[in-house]
Amino acid sequence: MSKKLIIPKQIVTADAEDKIYRNYSIEIEEGIIKSIAKVDEDKISKYYGEVLRYPNLTLVPGFVQTHIHTCQTLFRGLADDLELLDWLTMKIFPYENSHNKESLRASVKLSLLELQGGGTTTVMDMGTMRHQEVIFDEFIKNGMRGYCGKCMIDENELYPDFKETTKESLSESYQLAKEFHNSAEGRIKYGFAPRFVLSCSEELMKETHSMLGDFEDSIFHTHSSENKSEIEAVRKKYGKENIEYFNSIGVLDDHTVLAHCIHLNNSEIDSLKTTQARVAHCPSSNLKLGSGIAQIPRYLNEGIQVSLGADGAPCNNNLSVFTEMRLAALIQKPVHGPTSTNAKTIFRLGTIEGAKALHLDNEVGSIEVGKKADLVLLNLESSSHSLPDDDENIYSNIVYSSSPQDVEHVMINGGWVVVGGKSINLDEEEVVADAKEELLKLLKRSE
Amino acid sequence: MSKKLIIPKQIVTADAEDKIYRNYSIEIEEGIIKSIAKVDEDKISKYYGEVLRYPNLTLVPGFVQTHIHTCQTLFRGLADDLELLDWLTMKIFPYENSHNKESLRASVKLSLLELQGGGTTTVMDMGTMRHQEVIFDEFIKNGMRGYCGKCMIDENELYPDFKETTKESLSESYQLAKEFHNSAEGRIKYGFAPRFVLSCSEELMKETHSMLGDFEDSIFHTHSSENKSEIEAVRKKYGKENIEYFNSIGVLDDHTVLAHCIHLNNSEIDSLKTTQARVAHCPSSNLKLGSGIAQIPRYLNEGIQVSLGADGAPCNNNLSVFTEMRLAALIQKPVHGPTSTNAKTIFRLGTIEGAKALHLDNEVGSIEVGKKADLVLLNLESSSHSLPDDDENIYSNIVYSSSPQDVEHVMINGGWVVVGGKSINLDEEEVVADAKEELLKLLKRSE
Repeated sequence: MSKKLIIPKQIVTADAEDKIYRNYSIEIEEGIIKSIAKVDEDKISKYYGEVLRYPNLTLVPGFVQTHIHTCQTLFRGLADDLELLDWLTMKIFPYENSHNKESLRASVKLSLLELQGGGTTTVMDMGTMRHQEVIFDEFIKNGMRGYCGKCMIDENELYPDFKETTKESLSESYQLAKEFHNSAEGRIKYGFAPRFVLSCSEELMKETHSMLGDFEDSIFHTHSSENKSEIEAVRKKYGKENIEYFNSIGVLDDHTVLAHCIHLNNSEIDSLKTTQARVAHCPSSNLKLGSGIAQIPRYLNEGIQVSLGADGAPCNNNLSVFTEMRLAALIQKPVHGPTSTNAKTIFRLGTIEGAKALHLDNEVGSIEVGKKADLVLLNLESSSHSLPDDDENIYSNIVYSSSPQDVEHVMINGGWVVVGGKSINLDEEEVVADAKEELLKLLKRSE
Repeated sequence: MSKKLIIPKQIVTADAEDKIYRNYSIEIEEGIIKSIAKVDEDKISKYYGEVLRYPNLTLVPGFVQTHIHTCQTLFRGLADDLELLDWLTMKIFPYENSHNKESLRASVKLSLLELQGGGTTTVMDMGTMRHQEVIFDEFIKNGMRGYCGKCMIDENELYPDFKETTKESLSESYQLAKEFHNSAEGRIKYGFAPRFVLSCSEELMKETHSMLGDFEDSIFHTHSSENKSEIEAVRKKYGKENIEYFNSIGVLDDHTVLAHCIHLNNSEIDSLKTTQARVAHCPSSNLKLGSGIAQIPRYLNEGIQVSLGADGAPCNNNLSVFTEMRLAALIQKPVHGPTSTNAKTIFRLGTIEGAKALHLDNEVGSIEVGKKADLVLLNLESSSHSLPDDDENIYSNIVYSSSPQDVEHVMINGGWVVVGGKSINLDEEEVVADAKEELLKLLKRSE
């Protein structure tokens, strides 16, 4: 990999001091940020490597989304205006159950096209019960960074057809973790993914968690406390709230990421604090399924780790980190006041806090020397909808005004994945055509 | 103006039956929709006029936004994370007060670029206290349709520098209405714009309303019940709630459009019903200023007329009808359930209901024979973020998945204003550069 010197208009680092650099260059070698230095034209003229000047573009860290479902992207627009348990029973479980390798591949490609095109460079994916190797394959081939894991379901009252035995689920997960954890030069890691309390036996949850010991920095990734009917059903099953139950079986620690966490009582919030379990906040999904609004300002005040995710396309219906950032900022303000969840805080949730949730903050999430070069170049300069962009309001521009259409170039691990708004690896027309074809076939299979 | 035959993939009409046509052509002559008919290739081969085929694009009515502030677009990103009255006192009033003709023109151009580029073809604009003729001029020159009116302020405790006398305000408004109401072949109409209760004397409100009698189908456009401190101050001033006060002075009728209407008591809701006054719902702005969430499902159930608006760029921070539609749908669901405010209902709020609010529903807001050709061609087909698009989920795709980047072509009154995503009348680079320059000068003037 050649040496590159990138000279953007400005660099928004998301480092510990929220430093913003203007007239700085950033040097990349072997996928690593080697230096960040004041532009010195004399030195640059003698630079042995590629010099890339973007005088109108703003360099930001690649965005991180800690909860998505790439296998569902094919189902966008097919499951609208429904509540969580209906949404699962009537639409999502039957569709997921009907995936074959081809339809799954089409769905993952569509996801990566949208995610990378929108500046998301790292995700944690909830995976699929069957054919999980396809997801790994597409992530690896298309230069994505992320935690993926086979979705684990050994109980399913909502849709009994869609489950496997505890043993199968555990052994397949273990084999996949052995094969893929830390693969692709460490870009790919394993996130064990028991779906949620209602679709997992206690044994499955506990055994899964104990597997983490064999795979350093793997993650325990599940859903929690999303919807009132779900919570009622969990209470009926175990006589406990979600987090109380998780705590009682010992699966909460700093390598646990819980999507949603909307309806928590005080003792559950305390458990998140003491165990250091993390919250993946999905504001669009939480609104669209009518689930509720998570108390993010309180979680942040109490020191609970929070990051963002678009969840699945059918409950969003986008995979844009910009949409999630804007919404995460806006929805708290009527209750917590307009100064709460300000743009800078939210920008951090979409970048460095996402990396922290995944224990990747030594590698990505901010622009600092020694980190991997996961970078996004945004056009905030010549767009009619995000003017102006000096230091004071750069966070506002990114969080409140920007969208995937402002993403010009995206780099992961030092390699371009998007240039001029176009994917390097995926042909949009082909991917979309293929997705349509595979969707039609899947819908027939699910009839 | 030549005859045109447009043949899109599908036509989403927003007519009374929500008809969707596939394999239909739409004929336009002299800016009017002459016919909508099944594609007949034999006839088409002999058609005397332009034949435009868009096999991948979806034709929808031009979108209507009933509450915006084009004079504020220059201030985007400069007034974030503040509450309404602080936002006005510390930022918006001083900035508006510092507008000269050049900065105002730059702001309006920037607005039109974003609005038309995002498929909005009709707006009602709150205007500016001085230089209102500049707004009319730019609307006329750039082919926009809309109600505009000079913003009227004859009392201002929040920012005493920014007001005029009652007499000046009334006489200037009257003169402007005489000059511009029904100008530009009827594209431009006058919307009288007393700002809000706290910045208008009772005389100003009443006299303004009485002027409507001289200008058929002009509109009385103001703000109401946005913020709790504002409401408290109104109570202090008049011993009444906003709507009670408006009702007591006789300014509520079916030509009154009230932006926001978030905090209303039952008797105020009744007044909206009996007077047929209309609500311009601004969900982004209501969240961003921490104002609250208007009870739109209740208003709709009670038969109150509701439409959508992006409000000002500094409290949004976009002017995208797609953003407002998505948010209008989503924010009600945690309280009113996921099936409330479904995509089709919301699509109508952004199109035909907007036209109804402005008494323009005989002219625009839906695609029907005899209406003006205000049309938008959307690319839902080959985009990775809005697949698929058959009848069942077309509304979901538009409301939940689409964004201004999907707007390909826009026509107002039979003339193209956006082609291939680019403005016909405005040079984006020039407009943005000019806006930056004018903003810097304005900020100096406001110091």
